[in-house]
Amino acid sequence: MKRSERLVAMTNYLIENPMKLASLPYFSSEYDAAKSSISEDLAIVNKTFQQQGIGYLKSISGAAGGVKYIPEYSIENSEEFIGGLCEKMEDPSRLLPGGYLFMSDLLGEPAIVRDIGRLFASKFSELEIDVVVTVATKGIPLAYAVASFLNVPVVIVRRDPKVTEGSTVSINYVSGSSRKIQTMVLPKRSLQEGAKVCIIDDFMKAGGTINGIKDLLKEFNAEVKAIGVMAEAEDEEEDRVVDQYISLVQISNVDIKNSQIQVNQGNILNEQS
Amino acid sequence: MKRSERLVAMTNYLIENPMKLASLPYFSSEYDAAKSSISEDLAIVNKTFQQQGIGYLKSISGAAGGVKYIPEYSIENSEEFIGGLCEKMEDPSRLLPGGYLFMSDLLGEPAIVRDIGRLFASKFSELEIDVVVTVATKGIPLAYAVASFLNVPVVIVRRDPKVTEGSTVSINYVSGSSRKIQTMVLPKRSLQEGAKVCIIDDFMKAGGTINGIKDLLKEFNAEVKAIGVMAEAEDEEEDRVVDQYISLVQISNVDIKNSQIQVNQGNILNEQS
Repeated sequence: MKRSERLVAMTNYLIENPMKLASLPYFSSEYDAAKSSISEDLAIVNKTFQQQGIGYLKSISGAAGGVKYIPEYSIENSEEFIGGLCEKMEDPSRLLPGGYLFMSDLLGEPAIVRDIGRLFASKFSELEIDVVVTVATKGIPLAYAVASFLNVPVVIVRRDPKVTEGSTVSINYVSGSSRKIQTMVLPKRSLQEGAKVCIIDDFMKAGGTINGIKDLLKEFNAEVKAIGVMAEAEDEEEDRVVDQYISLVQISNVDIKNSQIQVNQGNILNEQS
Repeated sequence: MKRSERLVAMTNYLIENPMKLASLPYFSSEYDAAKSSISEDLAIVNKTFQQQGIGYLKSISGAAGGVKYIPEYSIENSEEFIGGLCEKMEDPSRLLPGGYLFMSDLLGEPAIVRDIGRLFASKFSELEIDVVVTVATKGIPLAYAVASFLNVPVVIVRRDPKVTEGSTVSINYVSGSSRKIQTMVLPKRSLQEGAKVCIIDDFMKAGGTINGIKDLLKEFNAEVKAIGVMAEAEDEEEDRVVDQYISLVQISNVDIKNSQIQVNQGNILNEQS
């Protein structure tokens, strides 16, 4: 295979397999090229990925060495994306009775969802996450997007057990904002003991749901390494029961009377995680 | 930018933006290169994508012309993937009481989910789908995977209306296998009148759920262009209420007594859609 074709094939391979160690001999045999040529190719890919602000190739030396594509969204790309998201969310036609916001259209766009996943994964790539956990329903696409960049599985907490999930572990928890008692379940075989997890959800008010997930995860002795939410409600800050989390945007001043919503950048770009 | 770097950047762009028309002037200004050079680059990308069995670049001529990356999984790649899926599903430890199969682990793997999306999208890429529709919960990741390759939004039918979805349209339907009356809802503003949709779900027995979705879509005057399910139950064929669909695998002979499951290739590779 010629260098030009190798570059296309390798770029595709690396993008489709983030966080996965690929050895030089693998590329060498796959594309029938000398290891020295493959090394040069990888240097070009690495340089271009960094220029494009989509991450870099990490070299792991030694006998079991190779390269890993680490997705890392640049600050400029991240700011541009979050700015666009704030603007879309400030659209007054999103206002629903009770001050809720309609967001299903945004969460229905695979390109937006993928970029959200890329942002969280950039932030969490050093944490050695084993699994992404979310709760049905709205968090699911975001969780898969994060997981696809971290190259780990997704586990979905449900509010109702299903026959297709086998034996389950369940807990009761108190919803932060409505103070209602609710249930959450997770199939027994879905999580290894001591797994390192990140929790992803679309929206956080007081944080009762996230806290419920944390309680459920304790039953599996899982270690919560990170929490990421797309949007947080700013006016709930006082009652918040979750303190360590990353948010993309912060919704404040939902003014139903004047049909105005104010959405600001969340803490993702100022947190040092 | 050098050709080698352009090839990496363009490959990334095309893979991240399937089914989206990109003009030569766009690439030309983005990578600061003559249109003739860009044309040569695109020819190399096209050739390599075809060699790798992941699709091709479609040229659209004229003033508003350019290229589109059409994901098309090769027969060899598809057969290999489906063969692997059958093998994984035949694992007797998946057997649950009542002859159900535990599949949450497979549906929790982003790489598997992405390949399933790629397969369906390959099949549906000519149908001018406007939106992918699924029903909560298990179909959601598959629907997003298909939608990301078709570059269209996802709409999620729910069994319970939520305050965050605004006004909804609901129907009652009879579940095919249990004969129970159930409800399905869709936010009113989630679908345009006359949209061309494809329905995606994880599992089909008699097809009552899919039929329910079809009934609900009629309320929006949507046109169902395709139906894709990951797995179908073969022994329900007689009672099936849905006849036009694509399946990846077919589950037959779930023998609880002897702990055996037989899983065969579905109709995806023999259908001419």
